[in-house]
Amino acid sequence: MRLRKKPWIAEAIREFDDILVDPGHDERWSDIFGRSAPLHVELGTGRGNFITGMAELHPHINFVGIEAVPDVLYCALCKVRERNLPNIRLVLFNVNELTELFMPGEIDRLYINFCDPWPKNRHAKRRLTHRRFLEMYRELVKENSELHFKTDNEALFEFSLNEFAEAKLGLHNISLDLHNSGFPNNVMTEYEARFKALGMKIFRCEARFEPLCKT
Amino acid sequence: MRLRKKPWIAEAIREFDDILVDPGHDERWSDIFGRSAPLHVELGTGRGNFITGMAELHPHINFVGIEAVPDVLYCALCKVRERNLPNIRLVLFNVNELTELFMPGEIDRLYINFCDPWPKNRHAKRRLTHRRFLEMYRELVKENSELHFKTDNEALFEFSLNEFAEAKLGLHNISLDLHNSGFPNNVMTEYEARFKALGMKIFRCEARFEPLCKT
Repeated sequence: MRLRKKPWIAEAIREFDDILVDPGHDERWSDIFGRSAPLHVELGTGRGNFITGMAELHPHINFVGIEAVPDVLYCALCKVRERNLPNIRLVLFNVNELTELFMPGEIDRLYINFCDPWPKNRHAKRRLTHRRFLEMYRELVKENSELHFKTDNEALFEFSLNEFAEAKLGLHNISLDLHNSGFPNNVMTEYEARFKALGMKIFRCEARFEPLCKT
Repeated sequence: MRLRKKPWIAEAIREFDDILVDPGHDERWSDIFGRSAPLHVELGTGRGNFITGMAELHPHINFVGIEAVPDVLYCALCKVRERNLPNIRLVLFNVNELTELFMPGEIDRLYINFCDPWPKNRHAKRRLTHRRFLEMYRELVKENSELHFKTDNEALFEFSLNEFAEAKLGLHNISLDLHNSGFPNNVMTEYEARFKALGMKIFRCEARFEPLCKT
């Protein structure tokens, strides 16, 4: 169920300037958070269930959530304020331009949860796990950082495993049925909770940006 | 449906000494086949549908099938003789002892199709995709050789992907639903044909023994 278009949203999100970060900022993230801490970034934060759950579980981590849809971001902003979480910042931005938000090697971990599967082959390049994105991510993460990926979409998962492998990311903890795999401390997104209730399978893996082999 | 135990089988398979190779042989495989050609080995040949289909499709390849169950091997032997395929040899042998059959670097490709999933965790070491087997295979294959793996068992496939990745094999052409993936020239095993008829999914991937990274 999509939220209805809210014309007042552009105005409303401005009230969250303690949580919402201007993508044009020129500060380092450690300055924005007011502390040095590992930086974990969620690409496509949606309504914010995952990032708020993670931020509560891991208070020693600085979390940045990126979301391109204002209506959805508004929900996430409300959630962060309600829970009073000092270790989250959100950005209204498109992942395509990620290099404008981070310095090379600044990110310690990436999360991609239930991103748009873009099912048509001619749209494959838009999938956030396409190798062109993986190359961009590699520039921005520290060596051996991990990308944690979840989806309910089998075809997207298959595509993504192949992209991770071809881009020489090290695969770990591949799960073809997350909720029957005994994975500990899984924080669910809004989609995930709904899919789980329907008995649908969730796919998950970790892909590590290991140093590229010099052959 | 298992074949009934046939007490005469040990006798019967001796009639196939043009196809059946004594595991104690000390010849090179190129001498056994009477020609130098790439050597492809199937671990657990079963009733031989896959290896005979492949040998027909690829006459320029020398195929060796290994099977530990005599009754089942008998079916495969009959099939090879019927089809009159000069590029197949079969061995009644246990994969555990594979190093006794091949020289280091002698094998060009491995096939594992619908191997026993050994579903209990305490039996994980018996699975043919366990890392202890992968280490053994690495000794016997040429650099950049591939292991082609198929199964209908989701838990075994998940386990195997993780084992391949941890053993630093390069993953390629991962398929979570082989028969809906447009994979060309797929030769089916007996199990596979039955599973496909039941509408069950088949999982497949290729794992490449790429040179280990020197870090």
